[in-house]
Amino acid sequence: MKSNPNELVQVFVTGGTFDKDYNFITGELSFKDTHIPRMFERGRCTLDINVKTLMMVDSLEMTVEDRDIIVHNCKKSLSEHILITHGTDRMVETARALAEADIQKTIVLTGAMIPYAFGVSSDGFFNLGSALAFVQTLPHGVYVVMNGRYFHWNEVRKNTKTGNFEYLK
Amino acid sequence: MKSNPNELVQVFVTGGTFDKDYNFITGELSFKDTHIPRMFERGRCTLDINVKTLMMVDSLEMTVEDRDIIVHNCKKSLSEHILITHGTDRMVETARALAEADIQKTIVLTGAMIPYAFGVSSDGFFNLGSALAFVQTLPHGVYVVMNGRYFHWNEVRKNTKTGNFEYLK
Amino acid sequence: MKSNPNELVQVFVTGGTFDKDYNFITGELSFKDTHIPRMFERGRCTLDINVKTLMMVDSLEMTVEDRDIIVHNCKKSLSEHILITHGTDRMVETARALAEADIQKTIVLTGAMIPYAFGVSSDGFFNLGSALAFVQTLPHGVYVVMNGRYFHWNEVRKNTKTGNFEYLK
Amino acid sequence: MKSNPNELVQVFVTGGTFDKDYNFITGELSFKDTHIPRMFERGRCTLDINVKTLMMVDSLEMTVEDRDIIVHNCKKSLSEHILITHGTDRMVETARALAEADIQKTIVLTGAMIPYAFGVSSDGFFNLGSALAFVQTLPHGVYVVMNGRYFHWNEVRKNTKTGNFEYLK
Repeated sequence: MKSNPNELVQVFVTGGTFDKDYNFITGELSFKDTHIPRMFERGRCTLDINVKTLMMVDSLEMTVEDRDIIVHNCKKSLSEHILITHGTDRMVETARALAEADIQKTIVLTGAMIPYAFGVSSDGFFNLGSALAFVQTLPHGVYVVMNGRYFHWNEVRKNTKTGNFEYLK
Repeated sequence: MKSNPNELVQVFVTGGTFDKDYNFITGELSFKDTHIPRMFERGRCTLDINVKTLMMVDSLEMTVEDRDIIVHNCKKSLSEHILITHGTDRMVETARALAEADIQKTIVLTGAMIPYAFGVSSDGFFNLGSALAFVQTLPHGVYVVMNGRYFHWNEVRKNTKTGNFEYLK
Repeated sequence: MKSNPNELVQVFVTGGTFDKDYNFITGELSFKDTHIPRMFERGRCTLDINVKTLMMVDSLEMTVEDRDIIVHNCKKSLSEHILITHGTDRMVETARALAEADIQKTIVLTGAMIPYAFGVSSDGFFNLGSALAFVQTLPHGVYVVMNGRYFHWNEVRKNTKTGNFEYLK
Repeated sequence: MKSNPNELVQVFVTGGTFDKDYNFITGELSFKDTHIPRMFERGRCTLDINVKTLMMVDSLEMTVEDRDIIVHNCKKSLSEHILITHGTDRMVETARALAEADIQKTIVLTGAMIPYAFGVSSDGFFNLGSALAFVQTLPHGVYVVMNGRYFHWNEVRKNTKTGNFEYLK
């Protein structure tokens, strides 16, 4: 039996620090196109991956409607393996919304503390690699993948002082 | 129950393209120190990881003695989760040697097609992220992790024309 | 006669886009330490260079007092070759203040449109190299160095639509 | 009077460490296309620059015929400002060949100790910026530009232990 059956991995892009770029006219961070497809190419990824951009927002500005769009797309996706890139500040909230929708799939949310465009200091490429691996191997459920770890959606929080994700006490 | 118990992940460094650096005096690629600890730091990894350099060699020059050292260290490691960085050309051979040693642990070998020191074109950081995730989730066995996938040691080969790993026919 | 006599080049750091870093706690761009000394090291620069940080500010927030500090330091510097890193938005204003002070030295202002910390997309390292060369070769006067060119302080403006510096009509 | 008249800067590419790339199939450094045009773009350079690749060779393998081609092209170029990218090991020899040809132009040779493709450790982008500035400002003659300095062709040598260029005793 082949270890990695040719199952599609569905990737949904929602924005977040991951995809922020420097706008040299305004001098601010903003969104242009997602870096995700180029990242899979650089990672020489040979899996069957479908990347779809649902929105490009800072998760602090994510609305109930945005979360509905994410849940809706996860439900209707033909893949059982769903990876979502997301801002870290509200990642746990979106994970909860997905868990409450009770979708029988493996759904992994990941993000970055430093934008991918920031080159050699960004954690994004590492996180994408680990999220892609976890989404292929974890049982159905909703997970947050950060700091080289996976967390069940209901056992994790972002420590806003360190920027790391950690277990709820 | 916590999803990621505080189990140690053991990382063994053996060299390979992953860790090659440019020597500006000779104009050639050679080994200095491993980049692995800095990569986990950049990945903001909070797992309990022990990194040990076993050797720094191009896998084309790896000897039977080198493989014995790798097998020996995997056997005596206290961790059940072992990640080995390795040159891609002979990764499958080392995987076989490990499989034949029948060690009851999850052993994942990974590498890079482009040195980490080559900055934004290297696949190394992505591979390290995915290998770290697979080593936490796959059952006992010996695996090759490249191209966003895992392969059982006995079902994979490196395609020397594309540089990608693929299933044996 | 030696072409580069061992004269000191004085570098004054004032901040600007050049030195902005990503703050992963706030998600905003802010100043930490200047990157300038490391950049000269990476450029393998063997000139006798003294780097002094006068302030770390966005040039849009630069005050009359800040400009007085810059003028004062340029006057009292023992070097005839002064390179100033500066935000691009008000670079021409500071150049004017320096010109009005009528200092008999070669003073070159440079900056970046994309922060150095943004890795492979930043123009900063190139600009630093060209500013360092111009400050060694141009006659006394005050100059803006951007886009691979030098401009006399009174013949240049920043085009806020393109981000490029250009001659006044 | 405008400081930078719209004179063409002629750039001749000859290869060298500057333009070496990693070949992931052979695991060796080799030449693909030159990075120079993209580097000027990244430097947001607005000068009128013509880039012509004369050859892509390691300067250790540069022949008398190669030098004849370089001299010939410098002679016939319509520009008085010529920048040549070149391997560092034989840069001084080519500078001598150019000086002996007694061409009434400003000719600057530059290179890199670490390939541009090596990202954040390469000195190439800095050297290109300083060479471009020196070629606009120095009087007619043949110069080597490295380490943030310019050297007359007959007063310089590469120190093969440090990799730096220095004055002949």
